[in-house]
Amino acid sequence: MLEAQIYVTLKRSVLDPQGETVKSGLASLGFTGVEDCRVGKFLVLTLGETDPERARGQVEEMCRRLLANPVIEEYRFQLREVAG
Amino acid sequence: MLEAQIYVTLKRSVLDPQGETVKSGLASLGFTGVEDCRVGKFLVLTLGETDPERARGQVEEMCRRLLANPVIEEYRFQLREVAG
Repeated sequence: MLEAQIYVTLKRSVLDPQGETVKSGLASLGFTGVEDCRVGKFLVLTLGETDPERARGQVEEMCRRLLANPVIEEYRFQLREVAG
Repeated sequence: MLEAQIYVTLKRSVLDPQGETVKSGLASLGFTGVEDCRVGKFLVLTLGETDPERARGQVEEMCRRLLANPVIEEYRFQLREVAG
């Protein structure tokens, strides 16, 4: 079986209020050395598909159609073989 | 400067309703080959700290105190050098 690890992040040009909130939270705990914080999603999919080429195409399409909002987000992913 | 890439995921033993919802959403789009889906957080912190050892200790503490809930989540992170 294949596992897809997908990272969905806001584009650099998009404001990240959740990241700002985390940064403030860290600052109020004394971690004042954080200059920037961006928060994204990390998805792990286990796929029945065993052919890496086909799996890559499917995950690409899942990202475009559901997992990421291409207007404000970007994504990348990697596939790895896992024990079924 | 250093950048910390932090992955926060639910422990395997914890139910992931958000992951189940994404899995159903994918299935209704025709992606029926997804056997499991887990959703986590992906954080990218830019740190003023330049010493990797000290930065590692700080990020470890940030994860324990704010970024992850150790009861239900686990975390891992990696540091990399970025242009300041």
